[in-house]
Formats: sequence, structure tokens, C-alpha cells
Amino acid sequence: MPLARIDVLPGTEEKTLTQLGDAVYRAMRETIDVPEGDLFQILTRHGEGGIRYDPAFLGVRRDDGVVFISLTMRAGRTPEQKRALYRRIVELAADAGVAARNVLITITENELIDWSFGEGEAQLAR
Amino acid sequence: MPLARIDVLPGTEEKTLTQLGDAVYRAMRETIDVPEGDLFQILTRHGEGGIRYDPAFLGVRRDDGVVFISLTMRAGRTPEQKRALYRRIVELAADAGVAARNVLITITENELIDWSFGEGEAQLAR
Amino acid sequence: MPLARIDVLPGTEEKTLTQLGDAVYRAMRETIDVPEGDLFQILTRHGEGGIRYDPAFLGVRRDDGVVFISLTMRAGRTPEQKRALYRRIVELAADAGVAARNVLITITENELIDWSFGEGEAQLAR
Repeated sequence: MPLARIDVLPGTEEKTLTQLGDAVYRAMRETIDVPEGDLFQILTRHGEGGIRYDPAFLGVRRDDGVVFISLTMRAGRTPEQKRALYRRIVELAADAGVAARNVLITITENELIDWSFGEGEAQLAR
Repeated sequence: MPLARIDVLPGTEEKTLTQLGDAVYRAMRETIDVPEGDLFQILTRHGEGGIRYDPAFLGVRRDDGVVFISLTMRAGRTPEQKRALYRRIVELAADAGVAARNVLITITENELIDWSFGEGEAQLAR
Repeated sequence: MPLARIDVLPGTEEKTLTQLGDAVYRAMRETIDVPEGDLFQILTRHGEGGIRYDPAFLGVRRDDGVVFISLTMRAGRTPEQKRALYRRIVELAADAGVAARNVLITITENELIDWSFGEGEAQLAR
């Protein structure tokens, strides 16, 4: 059910973008109890200037390899699960050649009734 | 006030995308009490690989005709209204040639104060 | 921490889009207590038809110079702060040549734990 939007600059190759998607999916499987096959992602490579970022906010060094990961998912994960998710995404992203310092993540939460996976049904809600 | 983001793959034609927007607007008018003229949508056709999805999650068959509809709207709609909304979107999308199994919908809620429709005013809040 | 998505039509030039980003950042600095350097934005110029809007909803006149500003930020700002934010964005956007009537803004809120600014850490949460 998480929907992930992943936004990158031209500095990140097409292939790396797909690997990033894999990293996000696998990290969610491992840390926040996402079921197998729950893979829904929108991946966008923007043009130059399409993403703006501060290169040093909070003491983290960033460059044009920045990756913005915006997750929408149902409420209920604990702070510890979210911390584990961030750590694991960054570890797996590193395997794809994306530096930990370049990975920004934000989570927005909703409820089970707020999802339809096709056929006009709210499959997750009782 | 709902803002709808609709994301599709190249398999969905430009014209169909507009018809999908119409379907979403009309379904909201009919099921969740959206006022006339409250039509605000961002429509994006991505390149190949720009949307990733599982072809069978929750037993629904999907293909490259998938349509992701992300709605942001004020809190307050009941579960029954949301179910009616999903059903109606899918019915009207079918008229545009989009299969019910290919329509994914997610809702994110905020409050009336979280909207400005121009002029720097929060028109919906008291 | 706010992540701003700014979406425009071809009627808005590249340079104006960057100036709009500056306006949003500066307005947030002045009205809702955003720290220096907290500048994270995704700017997208869509093709013709990529943004749909009602030209007169709520009595505000809009045209293809419309600008959709979607802000994700931690909960906690008061209604008065949000009103001040909207007013200030619109004032500064006007300096960039964007008419007040064409600026639409929506806010979605989350919590401090919902942000990672790199290195896999949740820098804002205790």
C-alpha cells in the first residue's frame, strides 16, 4: 500500500532510479511489514533545476545526486519502525551507488479506507 | 478543493487522460459533495518505466494501462462516501476505456485552513 | 522541512518558476518559522493540458499562468500562521510576475519523525 514517489535529477541514471525503487520496496518489506507484491511507485527524472535543495542543511552534504523519496502509507508505524526504514533504505540505496547523504525521505500517512487497488473496491478496509 | 494528481504510462493516450480527469471530477460531484467548478488536477504521462506496479497484488490483474489517482482533500468524508467515490470513478473511467482493474486510488486528507484558491486567502476557513 | 512541489503550465517561464521557489522559501522563513537552509523543492513545468483548473471557482479569475503549490510540512502551525504564509507567498510571487489570483496553495501535514534529511537519520525527532 505505500505509494512511493521518487524524484531525481539528471545526475541519476535511469537504471539507478529503478534500483532505488527496488531498495525502497525491499526496505519496506524488511522493516515496516509491507506484504509481498505491494510495490507501487512513480519515478521521475527531472530536468536540470527541477529539484532544488540546500547543499548543507542540518550538516549533511548534498549534491546533484539527491534523491527525494515521498511515501504515502497508512498510519500506525512506530517511530522505531520509521527509523529502521530510513536506515535500511539508505543502506540498500548505497548498493545502487546512491550516497547516504543524498537520500531525503518524507512520509505522509492516511488510513486503510483511503486505498483502492483496482475494481473500485477499498480492499484493505473492513 | 480536492487536488487530484493523475499519473499514467504511455499506454494511456492524452485524450483518455483528460477523460479520466472528467471522470474523477464527476464522481466527486456525485458522491462526496464537491461543489461545481471545484476542478483542480495535475495530469502526468510518464515515460516507459515511470510507474512501477505489481501486476497481481490483492488478486487484481493490472497492466500498462494502470492509472494512479492521488486525491488530496479536506477530512470528513465517511467510509461509505469513499467507497461510493471509488466505485463511481471506476464506472466512469470504464466509459473512457480504462479497465476497472487498472485504477488505483489513494486519498490524503487535510483541513479547510490548508487551502488557498488564489489572492492569498484561505477561502474555505472561517 | 517543508517539501514544496510547484507545478506550472508552459505559460510560466523557467526563470519565473525558480523565482516562485524563492518566494515560497522566503515566505516560509518569514511567517512559519522555517530555519535557514530548509529549502527543498520539486519544480515541474507541465505540457499544455497538464494542469486543469476552473477559471472562476470561488470568484477568483484564473488563466494559464496558474501555479499549484503543494506543501508538505510538520503539523503545528496555527491558522493565523497559515493565513500569513498564503498572503506572503502571493506578495512575493507578484514580484516575480505571477498574479495573486493564479496562485493555489495546499498544505499536507505530518510529524517530525516523518522526515529524514540524509544519512538514514530522522534528524528532527527526539
